[in-house]
Amino acid sequence: MQRFVLLIQYKGTNFSGSQKQPGLRTVQGELEKALCTLTKRNIRTIFSGRTDAGVHAFEQYVHIDSDFDFLSNGIVNSLNGILPKDMNVVKIDKASFDFHAQKSATERVYVYKIVNRAQRSAFDEDCLLIRNKLDTEYINSALSYIEGEFDFTSFKKSKTNNPARVCKVRYAKCYREGDNVYIEIAANRFLYGMVRTIVGTVLLAERKKLSPVVIKNILEAKDRTKAGPLVKPEGLTLIKVKYDTNNTEK
Amino acid sequence: MQRFVLLIQYKGTNFSGSQKQPGLRTVQGELEKALCTLTKRNIRTIFSGRTDAGVHAFEQYVHIDSDFDFLSNGIVNSLNGILPKDMNVVKIDKASFDFHAQKSATERVYVYKIVNRAQRSAFDEDCLLIRNKLDTEYINSALSYIEGEFDFTSFKKSKTNNPARVCKVRYAKCYREGDNVYIEIAANRFLYGMVRTIVGTVLLAERKKLSPVVIKNILEAKDRTKAGPLVKPEGLTLIKVKYDTNNTEK
Repeated sequence: MQRFVLLIQYKGTNFSGSQKQPGLRTVQGELEKALCTLTKRNIRTIFSGRTDAGVHAFEQYVHIDSDFDFLSNGIVNSLNGILPKDMNVVKIDKASFDFHAQKSATERVYVYKIVNRAQRSAFDEDCLLIRNKLDTEYINSALSYIEGEFDFTSFKKSKTNNPARVCKVRYAKCYREGDNVYIEIAANRFLYGMVRTIVGTVLLAERKKLSPVVIKNILEAKDRTKAGPLVKPEGLTLIKVKYDTNNTEK
Repeated sequence: MQRFVLLIQYKGTNFSGSQKQPGLRTVQGELEKALCTLTKRNIRTIFSGRTDAGVHAFEQYVHIDSDFDFLSNGIVNSLNGILPKDMNVVKIDKASFDFHAQKSATERVYVYKIVNRAQRSAFDEDCLLIRNKLDTEYINSALSYIEGEFDFTSFKKSKTNNPARVCKVRYAKCYREGDNVYIEIAANRFLYGMVRTIVGTVLLAERKKLSPVVIKNILEAKDRTKAGPLVKPEGLTLIKVKYDTNNTEK
């Protein structure tokens, strides 16, 4: 028996989220099905964390335990031949049994993409279009208030009951590349819907020309009703998951 | 009555080409339908040239004659509200009656995109994947033989009967951006299937490690059977159409 860690990618558009759910097309469901086809074994997968329906992952880690030789030549290609087109394996490495894709992760980084242009284009992917020019300086100033360790109750999707609501945000920044504006947030953990609620709140404050300090007030209120609306999931991508290098052979 | 010139864009994936055909979903068909909805008039559109099924256009020009005021505020937005998601109007300008979207065009530029990576990715668009690292220096050397004014019979799709087969290629070049390799060709005109046949021929020569001069020999043979296969249309985009500035107000 060996522990392996898989680096995978997926476009979330046509998945009902990453986590396996009976009767729904999920990333975990498709991955476990492909692993079973390849190895003729049932293999349980542990993800670094769940992503919502519609959310993409450019870098998602998954660990598995198996006696199958996942390091033999051509295995990644074989798996990609079995997997549906909207997901793929980038690489597979050996890991020690101390390594846990979810518990060993020390940081996740998400980026939210907004198309910021007066006109829509046939080449836009399915994501938020804002026609008025966004003030990235304002957004950066607003985002600076969520950098640090705080109770993010105000920015979690209301239906969740997880009592642990403290997250440590290492950075939250906004930048423009041509007609695209990106909001990127790195934290040790994220609450359900947190990035999309932060983005929705900051964009609403920008549009209403409120003082950026309003974000600090909303955060301190610990009250979801004070925050802005959740933005659509299609612009959101998990771009990085970091691990302590001493508990993995990756 | 006024002549107008429209700059439009489209993703070719779900169109049966640009040119109107009864019973098929085409770019011209959808554009004329939207113009009719907007203006309550039947408006005939003239494109700079036709693009095949699956081929995209980042810059396509279309002229129309109409007494409708296409320059009034918000018309571009209104048209984009009517047009399907995979096409859009970028701008509309007045043009003189000397201007003709097809006949006044002096140059067209196409780019063909190839994904060049050992593994496919969920984020690849639908285009050619080549797993072995392409030698862009070789490809550039091969492409240099088609620069100039030649009879391109060898590189036209065999079923066409148009007797005018001389094209003037201003440049043909290959470049890499990360995992993507692009082949870009600028010419006064293109024969049916010409870019895709050139790309297919050059890629075959590269893979077989033939001397790049083979492209010159194939060109001089004026025989379609000497060339390589047509590559798939999904990687091909019309990126630029140039006009003499003295016969348009654009």
